[in-house]
Amino acid sequence: MQALSLQNPVFAAYVVAATLMILKVAAMSWLTVVRMTQVKGGFRSPEDLKRTMFNPSPDPSQLHPNEAVDRVRRIHLNDLENVPFFLVAGLLFVLTDPSLLLARVLFYGYAVTRFLHFFAYITARTHDTRAMMWTPGSLIILYLAGSTLWTALTM
Amino acid sequence: MQALSLQNPVFAAYVVAATLMILKVAAMSWLTVVRMTQVKGGFRSPEDLKRTMFNPSPDPSQLHPNEAVDRVRRIHLNDLENVPFFLVAGLLFVLTDPSLLLARVLFYGYAVTRFLHFFAYITARTHDTRAMMWTPGSLIILYLAGSTLWTALTM
Amino acid sequence: MQALSLQNPVFAAYVVAATLMILKVAAMSWLTVVRMTQVKGGFRSPEDLKRTMFNPSPDPSQLHPNEAVDRVRRIHLNDLENVPFFLVAGLLFVLTDPSLLLARVLFYGYAVTRFLHFFAYITARTHDTRAMMWTPGSLIILYLAGSTLWTALTM
Repeated sequence: MQALSLQNPVFAAYVVAATLMILKVAAMSWLTVVRMTQVKGGFRSPEDLKRTMFNPSPDPSQLHPNEAVDRVRRIHLNDLENVPFFLVAGLLFVLTDPSLLLARVLFYGYAVTRFLHFFAYITARTHDTRAMMWTPGSLIILYLAGSTLWTALTM
Repeated sequence: MQALSLQNPVFAAYVVAATLMILKVAAMSWLTVVRMTQVKGGFRSPEDLKRTMFNPSPDPSQLHPNEAVDRVRRIHLNDLENVPFFLVAGLLFVLTDPSLLLARVLFYGYAVTRFLHFFAYITARTHDTRAMMWTPGSLIILYLAGSTLWTALTM
Repeated sequence: MQALSLQNPVFAAYVVAATLMILKVAAMSWLTVVRMTQVKGGFRSPEDLKRTMFNPSPDPSQLHPNEAVDRVRRIHLNDLENVPFFLVAGLLFVLTDPSLLLARVLFYGYAVTRFLHFFAYITARTHDTRAMMWTPGSLIILYLAGSTLWTALTM
C-alpha cells in the first residue's frame, strides 16, 4: 500500500487533522475581516482611509490599534508559528509508518487542543489557561519531528 | 502512475504554482532589503545602528518605522498567512485524484490572483481592490482543504 | 524505489534537515517563554496582567515591549518567513530526482546556515554578519524552487 494514499488509515487521519487546521487558519483571516467591519477600524495601510464601499466614512482613528482586531491577529500569528510545522512534521511522520493508534492520538490531539487554544484566546482566559491549551500542540510537533528525525538517523 | 510524479499532469500543475509562489514569497525578503537600502532605514534591531559596510552612517532614526519598508512587510505577512496553507492544501488535494481542469483552474488561479494582490498592495490601491484580489486565493484554500477533508471522510 | 521513502538517501537527507528545522522553530516558542519568565514581561495580551501562578505579581509595565523577548520574536518571525518555504521546496526538489551530493549540500547547508543565523541574531552581531548567515538560506530556497519549476516546465 502507498503511504500517501487515503487507503492508508494513518495518512487519512493526518489528512483530516491537517485540512481541519488549514480551514481553521484560513478562518482567522475572515474573522479579522469580520472584526474590522464590526469596529470599523484596526486597519494597517494608509490607503485604507480612502472612501470606498467597504469604508464609506473614513477617519484617521481607523488606523489606530484596536484590541478586538489585534486579538484575532495574535491568534493568527500563533497559528503561523505552529500549524505549518505540524503540517510538515505530520506528513513526514506518516512516512515513518507509525502505529495507527499513536498517529491518531497525535493528529487528533493536535487539532483538538488547537481549537481549545483558540477558544481560550478569543474569550481572553488567563495566560495560564491559554498556555495549557498551547503546550500539548507544541509538544506534539516536537515529538513528530524528533521521532521522524530519529527514524531517519537510525535506519 | 504515481500521484506525486511530474508525469502526473495534476501534480505538475501543482508544482508550477507552488514553486512560483515560493519564489514570490522569497522575493519579498529581497524587496524588503532593497527598500531598506533605498530609504536607509526601517531597521528593527538595535545592533543595526552599528557602523558597517551596509550602514556607513548610522542614525537613531533608522530604527523608526518606515512606510516604504513596512508596506513590503505587510505584503510578506499576508503571504505567510496564506501561501504555506495553499502549499499543503494543494499537495493533499493532488492526492485525492481531482480532474485536471479543476486542478489547473485552482492552482493557476491561486498563483495569478496572488500576483495581482501583490501589485494592488505595492501600488497602494484602495482596500476594496486589494480585498478583491485577496478573496479568490482564500476561497481556493478553503475549497482545496474542504474538498480534501470531504474525500478523506467519505471514502 | 519510492522517492518519498527513507530508503532513498536524497529523501533521508531532506528529512534530517527538515525535522532539525522544525525542532529549531518550535524551540523559538519555548525560548520566548523562557525570556518572558526571566524578565517577567514582554507580554502582549491584556489578560496576561491577571494574577495567576505564572504571574503572581502583575504590573502594567509587563505589557511594554521588552528587547530580550522581542529579539527572540524577530528571530522567530524570520524563521516563519523562511523555513516553511524550505520545507515545501525541499520536498518537491526530492521528487525531481536530484543528485545525492547536490541535495545533501543544499539541505545540510540550509540547516547549518540557519543555525548560524540564529547565533548571529541572538548574540546581536552586526547586521552584516547576520545578513551573511541569512543569505545562503534564501539563495538555497530560490535554487530549490527555481530548479524544481524548471524541471516541471521542461519535462
